[in-house]
Amino acid sequence: MVPTDGSMVRPISRGLTLRAFIIWCILLPFIGISSGAKTRHFKWEVEYMYWSPDCIEHVVMGINGQFPGPTIRAKAGDTIVVELTNKLSTEGVVIHWHGIRQLGTPWADGTAFISQCAINSGETFHYRFKVDRAGTYFYHGHLGMQRSAGLYGSLIVDVAEGEKEPFHYDGEFNLLLSDWWHKSVHEQEVGLSSIPFRWIGEPQSLLINGRGQYNCSLAAQYSNTTSSQCKLRGNEQCAPQILHVRPNKTYRLRVASSTALASLNLAIGNHKMVVVEADGNYLQPFAVNDLDIYSGESYSVLITTDQDPSKNYWLSLGVRGRLPATPPALTILNYQPISASKFPTSPPPVTPRWNDYDHSKKFSKSIFALMGSPKPPKSYDRRITLLNTQNKIDGFTKWAINNVSLALPPTPYLGSIKYGLRNAFDQKSPPENFPNSYDVTKPPINPNSTTGSGVYMFGLNTTVDVILQNANALSDNVSEIHPWHLHGHDFWVLGYGEGKFSAKDEKKLNFKNPPLRNTAVIFPYGWTALRYVADNPGVWAFHCHIEPHLHMGMGVVFAEGVHHVKSIPNEALSCGLTAKFLNKKG
Amino acid sequence: MVPTDGSMVRPISRGLTLRAFIIWCILLPFIGISSGAKTRHFKWEVEYMYWSPDCIEHVVMGINGQFPGPTIRAKAGDTIVVELTNKLSTEGVVIHWHGIRQLGTPWADGTAFISQCAINSGETFHYRFKVDRAGTYFYHGHLGMQRSAGLYGSLIVDVAEGEKEPFHYDGEFNLLLSDWWHKSVHEQEVGLSSIPFRWIGEPQSLLINGRGQYNCSLAAQYSNTTSSQCKLRGNEQCAPQILHVRPNKTYRLRVASSTALASLNLAIGNHKMVVVEADGNYLQPFAVNDLDIYSGESYSVLITTDQDPSKNYWLSLGVRGRLPATPPALTILNYQPISASKFPTSPPPVTPRWNDYDHSKKFSKSIFALMGSPKPPKSYDRRITLLNTQNKIDGFTKWAINNVSLALPPTPYLGSIKYGLRNAFDQKSPPENFPNSYDVTKPPINPNSTTGSGVYMFGLNTTVDVILQNANALSDNVSEIHPWHLHGHDFWVLGYGEGKFSAKDEKKLNFKNPPLRNTAVIFPYGWTALRYVADNPGVWAFHCHIEPHLHMGMGVVFAEGVHHVKSIPNEALSCGLTAKFLNKKG
Repeated sequence: MVPTDGSMVRPISRGLTLRAFIIWCILLPFIGISSGAKTRHFKWEVEYMYWSPDCIEHVVMGINGQFPGPTIRAKAGDTIVVELTNKLSTEGVVIHWHGIRQLGTPWADGTAFISQCAINSGETFHYRFKVDRAGTYFYHGHLGMQRSAGLYGSLIVDVAEGEKEPFHYDGEFNLLLSDWWHKSVHEQEVGLSSIPFRWIGEPQSLLINGRGQYNCSLAAQYSNTTSSQCKLRGNEQCAPQILHVRPNKTYRLRVASSTALASLNLAIGNHKMVVVEADGNYLQPFAVNDLDIYSGESYSVLITTDQDPSKNYWLSLGVRGRLPATPPALTILNYQPISASKFPTSPPPVTPRWNDYDHSKKFSKSIFALMGSPKPPKSYDRRITLLNTQNKIDGFTKWAINNVSLALPPTPYLGSIKYGLRNAFDQKSPPENFPNSYDVTKPPINPNSTTGSGVYMFGLNTTVDVILQNANALSDNVSEIHPWHLHGHDFWVLGYGEGKFSAKDEKKLNFKNPPLRNTAVIFPYGWTALRYVADNPGVWAFHCHIEPHLHMGMGVVFAEGVHHVKSIPNEALSCGLTAKFLNKKG
Repeated sequence: MVPTDGSMVRPISRGLTLRAFIIWCILLPFIGISSGAKTRHFKWEVEYMYWSPDCIEHVVMGINGQFPGPTIRAKAGDTIVVELTNKLSTEGVVIHWHGIRQLGTPWADGTAFISQCAINSGETFHYRFKVDRAGTYFYHGHLGMQRSAGLYGSLIVDVAEGEKEPFHYDGEFNLLLSDWWHKSVHEQEVGLSSIPFRWIGEPQSLLINGRGQYNCSLAAQYSNTTSSQCKLRGNEQCAPQILHVRPNKTYRLRVASSTALASLNLAIGNHKMVVVEADGNYLQPFAVNDLDIYSGESYSVLITTDQDPSKNYWLSLGVRGRLPATPPALTILNYQPISASKFPTSPPPVTPRWNDYDHSKKFSKSIFALMGSPKPPKSYDRRITLLNTQNKIDGFTKWAINNVSLALPPTPYLGSIKYGLRNAFDQKSPPENFPNSYDVTKPPINPNSTTGSGVYMFGLNTTVDVILQNANALSDNVSEIHPWHLHGHDFWVLGYGEGKFSAKDEKKLNFKNPPLRNTAVIFPYGWTALRYVADNPGVWAFHCHIEPHLHMGMGVVFAEGVHHVKSIPNEALSCGLTAKFLNKKG
């Protein structure tokens, strides 16, 4: 039997008797292949609740009465089972396990209309998937803009029993970063789908582990801010989580960004950070004073508490890439045994200028895979170029990829492709490139675009190159940052460049030690080159991780080897045309 | 072929040739049995939009870009087909056709979790039902509190071709009444389901055909209101619809109330109203100065424009039954050819005092069926008494019926009963009475209640008596008005009384000319006696029509002859356990 009580199945011991070994061999298929692997069961209920993430009360989407949702902590090789009950009264819900590749379980990827039907109000869905690799991950809603509503939490995978991380640390902290609006996501969504278009604006607050301060500043006394000094007792929902450390130790900070919009920069006064992990992949360690992190990314950084132990230090989180209208989120690195209430002697670190893209690019280009990491195939089988443009469709403002703005169909692709339901989505493959004459430095000459639901179909095990090409938005001299996130795979980030990608850029690509990631940014007016192997049968979203941008159509759908996908649970497909198909099939 | 373009199929004419008659006989089965009956097709899309119902912009749930939704106008015997597409990004949706009995089409009743699954985001559902009887009806959402969000509209059924109403009129107006909050329904719902309980409060505005004025008054100049005089051009979304009449004519006002909470009173300066129809049933005409109307009710009243034709007159709508915190809604009865912009010389009619229940009871007790209307069976086969109490469950504030607070299951009853899916809901029948010792004049001694999903099952064609028994709420000396609405049937309102219903009340019941209704009110601390024949195979909600009360569990589920229900469309049942059942059945 698979243990359901969360108890550990111990690995085979050295002093094993023959009899025990035989019993072990009989039981093995039932308890999972990895020795020490465990099945971890969670019962979650999603519902709205009143909460004060930034000291101002609003409606938040929570799990089991918590915001952010409960942290899942597991070991590599474990199986996670989440029995998710939708307690929302009118809304569907799904949860995407961001960074988990869902090898063999594409139906558990938690993307509404792609990998599964939304879980209806009152119903329970069982996510069951393996966390095959240690790393810093998170989970979040993937229907409408429910992530923005607060549906997210951390998913931390430790190395398997007996394994070691390739770096040492004495303790760790987990920082899940997000941004927060006072306008409800329902109203945000309506604005985005209105004529005239109404943008959601900049967030009211940045949150660290769901905590920020809107109406006051923790560091008002240091700066010329108009905010008053926060008076918090520490037990408020919005009180910062203090990072308690001991001097002369090394700590791992796990940092993940679930922001709806904001590109962030994190810094700790006086402390350098050594970046060692990105999106669940080890990096060639490198030191920085501040860390850029885009929505959908995760990092681990090591800090050493080698500064004056009679002081505390600020951790500061600010906005990059957009003219900031949001004050930084702050917390304190507290050198114990001194009191956490002792204020740092210096002001919080200042976030680099929002449009200092050289700073951002320098950071991104410092990221290399740890020696010994998997290397990309030497050549690609197929290359697609994806032009990112802002467009108009019937007067609505949209984002489009090669002039197609993604509109998800009501029937999940995983089912419709598997069962050959050709009416379920556009059968024509979307364009693989854009006209050579297109000027990426100017607004689109003809901004009119179309919506589409076509799929890029790849042969199983194809090596795919994706050139993400940025361009000018609808307004003159505007080109935005977009962090693109791929489901079901990691990709190698082969390089970044300026302007339109061309043959001469080919030789700039890094095939030696490109980092494996699941999220990569495109800088304004630039390109980013990615390579991945389409080796995971399923249907996979690839999209801008900025929530309103995806809502406005900024994504594509990739699929490979769907006929190899076995035993999709019916509960994943009881909607749309797959429901009809399953009824007939019986 | 059934005409799909809305064109009329003309009845057989007198000068018919034999050949035409033969063709007619061949075509007859294809065009419906009723001569003159028509199939009316509608394509609707439900989505949120910005709107200013009371001159303040908010998000409203609209249909085809309209609020209220489009008016359906049909003739008795017609078939209505509504192809409803859910364009909401995360929410399900259904539409209930309030007052339409759905004879033979219980799956089209539009009650989520009872008659069908919620229509998922992106999907289309086909409502197809006959409007068998002339009358004033309306439609509205029946999932969560989507009615409160603005999902409603009028459904007017005229007499069949060649038939006549039993009263004369020269013209008519349609007034759909509602109440409106500035807080979103999502937030309202969370408050109702929070500890501590947060009540939605009184509405900000009353609306007539979706139009009210929050920040000004049309009649400020007449009264000592603090509101300023409205300055409206007339083309605003919140500008009142003027009732343009000619002198010395008779007009029919069709009045229906889709309020979430408010009990209303409507009056027109100087004009008496003759009440002739209620909930699609003709009444013994009676004259009133003002009309009480509760949520879920509809009336037709006749007015004669026999007043000074050089003047205009106010139509005023105010709150009854709760301490009003909402200003009246107003519009103008304009005696053409004088200008509609000429102000009435008198102030608007004053709404009767909110707690003048004698006034309300006098009105309700004046309602009798028109002579020749169907009479109730002389005796009942089964009588159930439903005690209405406010309760606590695990600290949450609820309403309960015989100490059970209704919690709808995720699988629609119509499917689960039809297919014998016993795990879908509580198999134990809910209580048919309450302890004799219960003191209805006091708060519940033990306010703790339980949730339940049990069904009152009635043999087909059983004559059922329902005694609705009001009681004291949780606070001392509070007993509220509740308008109870029955789906799938009309009932005879046999009588109203004070205190606890007892044997001595039996002889006060009216079996001679009780009105047929689908909604009847219980007054504070009183009882209301209803009789109906359970002759419509299906599963039918019976509930308080106050939206937050139903959300808090104030309803029961009735079912009869479900095994007689034929051909439920699969699209109505592709959720929960019925989806699984249909998959297996194939």
